[in-house]
Amino acid sequence: MKVRLVKLPLFFVLGQKFIYSGPHMVKEIDALLKRLFPICRSITGNGVRKTLSIIRTHVPLKIKEVPTGTKVFDWTVPKEWNIKDAYIKDPSGEKIVDFKKNNLHIVGYSIPVNTKMKLSGLKKHLHSIPEKPSIIPYKTSYYKENWGFCVTHEQLTSLKDGTYEVVIDSSLKDGSLTYGELLIPGKSKDEVLISCGICHPSMANDSLSGVVLATLLAKELLKKKGRYSYRFLFIPETIGAIVWLAGNKTGAKRIKHGLVATCLGDSGQFNYKKSRAGNASIDTAVEKALKDSKMPYSILDYWPTGSDERQFNSPGFSLPIGSLMRSVYGHFPEYHTSGDNLDFVKGKYVEETLRLYAEVIFILENDALCTSRNPFCEPQLGPRGLYDDHHPEEFVISLLWLANYSDGKNTLLDIANIADQPFRAVQAAAESLEKVGFLRLG
Amino acid sequence: MKVRLVKLPLFFVLGQKFIYSGPHMVKEIDALLKRLFPICRSITGNGVRKTLSIIRTHVPLKIKEVPTGTKVFDWTVPKEWNIKDAYIKDPSGEKIVDFKKNNLHIVGYSIPVNTKMKLSGLKKHLHSIPEKPSIIPYKTSYYKENWGFCVTHEQLTSLKDGTYEVVIDSSLKDGSLTYGELLIPGKSKDEVLISCGICHPSMANDSLSGVVLATLLAKELLKKKGRYSYRFLFIPETIGAIVWLAGNKTGAKRIKHGLVATCLGDSGQFNYKKSRAGNASIDTAVEKALKDSKMPYSILDYWPTGSDERQFNSPGFSLPIGSLMRSVYGHFPEYHTSGDNLDFVKGKYVEETLRLYAEVIFILENDALCTSRNPFCEPQLGPRGLYDDHHPEEFVISLLWLANYSDGKNTLLDIANIADQPFRAVQAAAESLEKVGFLRLG
Amino acid sequence: MKVRLVKLPLFFVLGQKFIYSGPHMVKEIDALLKRLFPICRSITGNGVRKTLSIIRTHVPLKIKEVPTGTKVFDWTVPKEWNIKDAYIKDPSGEKIVDFKKNNLHIVGYSIPVNTKMKLSGLKKHLHSIPEKPSIIPYKTSYYKENWGFCVTHEQLTSLKDGTYEVVIDSSLKDGSLTYGELLIPGKSKDEVLISCGICHPSMANDSLSGVVLATLLAKELLKKKGRYSYRFLFIPETIGAIVWLAGNKTGAKRIKHGLVATCLGDSGQFNYKKSRAGNASIDTAVEKALKDSKMPYSILDYWPTGSDERQFNSPGFSLPIGSLMRSVYGHFPEYHTSGDNLDFVKGKYVEETLRLYAEVIFILENDALCTSRNPFCEPQLGPRGLYDDHHPEEFVISLLWLANYSDGKNTLLDIANIADQPFRAVQAAAESLEKVGFLRLG
Repeated sequence: MKVRLVKLPLFFVLGQKFIYSGPHMVKEIDALLKRLFPICRSITGNGVRKTLSIIRTHVPLKIKEVPTGTKVFDWTVPKEWNIKDAYIKDPSGEKIVDFKKNNLHIVGYSIPVNTKMKLSGLKKHLHSIPEKPSIIPYKTSYYKENWGFCVTHEQLTSLKDGTYEVVIDSSLKDGSLTYGELLIPGKSKDEVLISCGICHPSMANDSLSGVVLATLLAKELLKKKGRYSYRFLFIPETIGAIVWLAGNKTGAKRIKHGLVATCLGDSGQFNYKKSRAGNASIDTAVEKALKDSKMPYSILDYWPTGSDERQFNSPGFSLPIGSLMRSVYGHFPEYHTSGDNLDFVKGKYVEETLRLYAEVIFILENDALCTSRNPFCEPQLGPRGLYDDHHPEEFVISLLWLANYSDGKNTLLDIANIADQPFRAVQAAAESLEKVGFLRLG
Repeated sequence: MKVRLVKLPLFFVLGQKFIYSGPHMVKEIDALLKRLFPICRSITGNGVRKTLSIIRTHVPLKIKEVPTGTKVFDWTVPKEWNIKDAYIKDPSGEKIVDFKKNNLHIVGYSIPVNTKMKLSGLKKHLHSIPEKPSIIPYKTSYYKENWGFCVTHEQLTSLKDGTYEVVIDSSLKDGSLTYGELLIPGKSKDEVLISCGICHPSMANDSLSGVVLATLLAKELLKKKGRYSYRFLFIPETIGAIVWLAGNKTGAKRIKHGLVATCLGDSGQFNYKKSRAGNASIDTAVEKALKDSKMPYSILDYWPTGSDERQFNSPGFSLPIGSLMRSVYGHFPEYHTSGDNLDFVKGKYVEETLRLYAEVIFILENDALCTSRNPFCEPQLGPRGLYDDHHPEEFVISLLWLANYSDGKNTLLDIANIADQPFRAVQAAAESLEKVGFLRLG
Repeated sequence: MKVRLVKLPLFFVLGQKFIYSGPHMVKEIDALLKRLFPICRSITGNGVRKTLSIIRTHVPLKIKEVPTGTKVFDWTVPKEWNIKDAYIKDPSGEKIVDFKKNNLHIVGYSIPVNTKMKLSGLKKHLHSIPEKPSIIPYKTSYYKENWGFCVTHEQLTSLKDGTYEVVIDSSLKDGSLTYGELLIPGKSKDEVLISCGICHPSMANDSLSGVVLATLLAKELLKKKGRYSYRFLFIPETIGAIVWLAGNKTGAKRIKHGLVATCLGDSGQFNYKKSRAGNASIDTAVEKALKDSKMPYSILDYWPTGSDERQFNSPGFSLPIGSLMRSVYGHFPEYHTSGDNLDFVKGKYVEETLRLYAEVIFILENDALCTSRNPFCEPQLGPRGLYDDHHPEEFVISLLWLANYSDGKNTLLDIANIADQPFRAVQAAAESLEKVGFLRLG
C-alpha cells in the first residue's frame, strides 16, 4: 500500500469554531486592558467591585459578597480594605511619593497613618529593589497589620535627613470579600472551570491578562451551547479560591477539567503547569493543543507554589486543574513590579493565548471514546470517497489510524497522540467515519 | 565470589536446530526467486495459480478458490483478472511499449482495450516517474475500472504527435480469488502464523522475497514436529487477508504469534515493525533474536499502513503479529518500481533473514516459565560439574541468573533480557538445571 | 505568591541522630581495622572465633557453632579448617614462601602437606598474577580437597630447578562453622538486617571494612531504642548466609529492609547495588541518602554474582536487601590480592560510609505515610509562625509540598523525591505540621 505524500497546509486555524478572532478581538482586548489596568485592586474593597462591574458590561456575571469574619476551612475572611489617598511629603513640603501617580507605591492593606517622622524611622517602612533602581516593587501585608510605601531605589537613596509627613488615607474594617462568578450551562452538568485573579493593583500580566482573557472567552462561549458547562471565577487569589471552595464543596465535584488563567499576555513562549495528578485529560488536551499549534512551549510538572491551582489541587479536592501561561510567575524580571505594565503586555499576545484556550476547549468538547462498528479488518474506504487525493494527507492517514485503534479503549485524543497527527485531522476523520456508520464516538 | 572472565566465542549459529543452512540453501533460494520472478501476478488470476503450483513442488500447499462476489466483512471478492498481451504501437507501427518485455508496463486490473488514439488522449493513461527517468513504476486499479500503461519517463518524453495503437488483451470477469495455505501440526493447537503476499508481478523484494522465505521455512519446519503448529498463508495482500480472516473468525484465535514476511531480501539492515499491542511475546522474541544476532537493526512502533499486519491487528482480531523486514516498504528507492528486481534482491540476504526467522522460532518454541525447585538460597553448582571453566562464560553466568530469577513469574526470555545474555545461553543453562532437578520449565 | 529565595546552608550533618561521629570515631575504626586485619580467617576455624571475640569486646554478640555435616538446603556445612604454619624451602634450605609473613600465601582450605618435590611438580601448586608481578593473589579451594601456595610472580619466575621442601601444618576435620549474631530490639519486631562477611584472611576492603562498620554501627544503635529491630550477622560468605537462612526460614520474614556491608573502606565513590526487586523501600531510601549527601554515586541494578545478597534475594526468600559499597568487588585492581590492605583502606573512608548507613537508617526510621488533617485548601501557615524568613528555604518549601501531597498515599520519602528536597527538610517540616495538628504521620 502506498502512502500518498501530498502535503497540504494545516487545515485549521487555532481556536476555530469557538473564537471568531482577528484584529477586532485584539482591539477589544487592548481596550479592556487599558480600562482595567489603572484600578487599585486588592483582595477586598471597591477596586474589586469596580473591576467586576466593568466585566459585567461584557458578560452577565453574578457578584457575590462574603462578610468579614466568615470561617472558610483554616482561614477567615479578612477585614475590607479601601484607600483614597497616600503620600509622603519631604522636609520642604514637596510630595515625593504619591499613591495617585502609581498605586504600587502603597503596601497593600496598609493601615491609616497621618504622622510626621524622621527619615530613619520612615525608612523602616520603605521598600525598594536595589538591583532595579528605577522600578517600584509590589508588596502586601494582608494578615499582619502594618503599613509601608514602595519606592524606586533611586527615590530611596536621594532622601535627605529631616522630618517627613506621611499620610495614608485608608480604612481597614469589617466589610466583605467580593468576587464574580458566571456559569454557562452546557448539555452536561459536568463543568470546565476557568479561574482568574482580580486582586492585583496596576500590574498587567499578573493577573490582569487572565481576567481579560476569561472575560472574552466567556463572551464567546455564551454564543452557543457546548457539551460541557463552563464556570468562570473572578476571585482574589488564595482567599478567594478558598472562599469559593468552602461554599462549593459538593459542587466542585462537577469540575472535570480546569485552567487557572494568569501571566498570559506577554511575548514569552507558552508554559503549561500540569495538574498535581499530572495525567488528567486537561493535561493531555493542553499538551496536544500546544503541539498542534506548532508554537514553542514547555510542559512543567506541578509544584505547590504559584496561583490558585494550589487550592484546587489540595488533597481534599484534587481537581484536574492546570495553568496555561506564557512567562511563568516569578520567572520574568517584571514580575511583581511596576515593570509589569501595558508596555510589557499586549492585546495581540493575549489574543494568541485566547485562541489556544479555545483550541483546548475544542479538544475537550470533541474528545470521545472510539469504538469501531467495523472491527474486523479495515473498512473499504475507496468506494465511499474517503480514500483519495482530494483529502489532506493528515485526514487520510487519520482514517487508517482510527480503523486500527478504535478498540473501545482509545479516545480521539489518545489516537491523535499515538498517530502523532493533529487532533483536528483525527477528529475530522472520525466524523467522516461516524457518518458512514463505521465508528461510534462517545 | 570471582566471576570467571574466559571469553568463549558465541556458541550458536543463528537459526540452528531449525535451518541446516549453508551454500545449498542460498542456491535453492536463488533458483526459486528466478523461477517465480517473471510471472505476472495480481490479486486474482492465473499468475497466482502458477505461483502456487510452483510452491507446491516444495511444500504440500492446499490451494483455495473463493468466488467473485463473495462478501467478506466490508469487502467483496472482485472479478478475476487475466492478461495475455498488451502493447502500444507508435504512428510508424513500431511496438514501443510491450507487456511481454516487462509486466510492470500494464496497470494491474486494466480492462481490455483495442483502439487507436491521439498522443494527447493516450497520455492520460501513461504513468512515469520524472525523478527516475529510466525506471518503470508499478500501478494498479483494483476497485475502479480503468486502464493504463507504466513507462519510463524517457519513453514518455520521447513520444511524438500522431495516432497510436493501443491493445490490452485482458479479461476481467467473474472467477475466483486464489490463495495457498499450509498447516504444519505441532504438539499444541496453538499456532504461529507466517503470512506472505502473492499478488505482485515482477518485483523481487515486495513481496516475492517473503514468498520464497515462507516456502523454504515451511519446508524446514515440516522436518520435525514442534511445540507449536505453524500456519503459512500465501495470499494476495489486503483482500486475501480479509478473505482468510472472514473464513477463520474463530480459528484465528488459535494464533498466538505471527509475522508478515515481505521486503526481506535486499542488503539493508533489519527492521522489525511491532504488533499493534507493542508488547506481545512475538515482539520480545524478535527483538531478542535481533539483539543476539549482533547485526544492526531497528525496532519500529506499529503504524497502520503497510502490509497485512493491518488486517491481523484490526481491533476485532488484535492478533499479535508483527513484520520482520530488511528495508521497509516505501522507504527504499526501488520500492514499487522496476528497480525492485533480482539485482537488488539476492539469495544470500534472504538466507540470512531466513535464519533470523528460524532463531525467532527457536525462541518461541523454547521459551517457558522458570520455577526453581531449589528456591531457598543458591543450588550448589560445583559438585554437579556446572560451575567450572569448561563452560562458556555466558553459560555459567546464565546459571546464576536463573538461580536468582526463576521465581515462577519470569520466562527464559524475561531472564535473558534482564541478564542481557543470549537466549541460547540462558536456554542451555536452563536445560542443564532442569536435568539436575533444580528447575521446572513450562 | 512569592517564593522566598534565602539560601541557608544544608541544615543537617549526614548520619546525625544515630552517629555522634568525628575524629574519635575515625580513630576507633582505624584501631579495629588494625587489630582484625592480621588474623587468618576462613569460612570455618579459629580465625573466625578470634575475630568474633574481638567484636564482642564492642557489642554483645551471640556466637553460634554449627557442626560439620549439617544439611542446609542444597549445601552441607564443611569440615573445619585450621592452620598453624606453612612454608616452602628452596634447594638451599632457605624459607622462600612463609605463611607467617602473609596469610594469603596459602590457598584457603589447603590440606596438610609435608614433602619434598621437584620444581616442576611444585609449580602445579603455585599461583601468581603475571600482570601484577609484586602482588600475591588470594585463592581458596573449599569444596575440592587440594593444596597450594600463592606467590608474587617475581617469586615464581626466580625459582631455580632443584628439590623443594613443602610444609603445610593444617588440619581439615569435623568441627563446626562459627558465626556471630546480634539483635537490637526496637519498638517493632520488624527488622533491618545488616550482614557482613568474616571469612576473608588479610584483606581490608573485602570484607573486613564491612565487619568494622557493622560493629560500630551496632554499638551506636544500642544506645537508644528505634522503631525497627536491628539484626547484625557476622558470617562466612555464602555458606554462612545459607546456614543462617536455613535456621531462620520463618524468622527471615520479619526482615523489612537490609544491607550487605562489604567493600566500603576505600577512597572510591559510592555504589549501591539494588535489591533484586529493584523498587524496595531500601532501594529508595539509599538512593535518597546518597542524593542528599551531595557526594558522587552510582545506582546499579541487581546482578547475581557478588556477596550474600545472592542468598537473601534467592526466589524462596526474595528479601529486600541491597548492598551499599564504595568500589565494587571485582572492579578495583586490589580486589582479592595482597594489595587490598591498610594502605588502601582507611578509617576516614569507613567513617564516611558509616554516616551514610546512619542516614539510610534515619530515613527508614522516620519515613511514614502522610495524611493531611486539613485536606481542603492550604493550611494558613503564617499565623502559626511556620511561614517566615527564619526557616531555611528547604523547610518552607517542604511545608507547601506536604500540604499539597499528603493525600494518604504518599510517604515522606515519596514527597521528598517528588519535591526534590532533602529528606531531612521534608521530615522536619512534617514534624512541624504534625505538631500544629495538620498532618497525621504513619
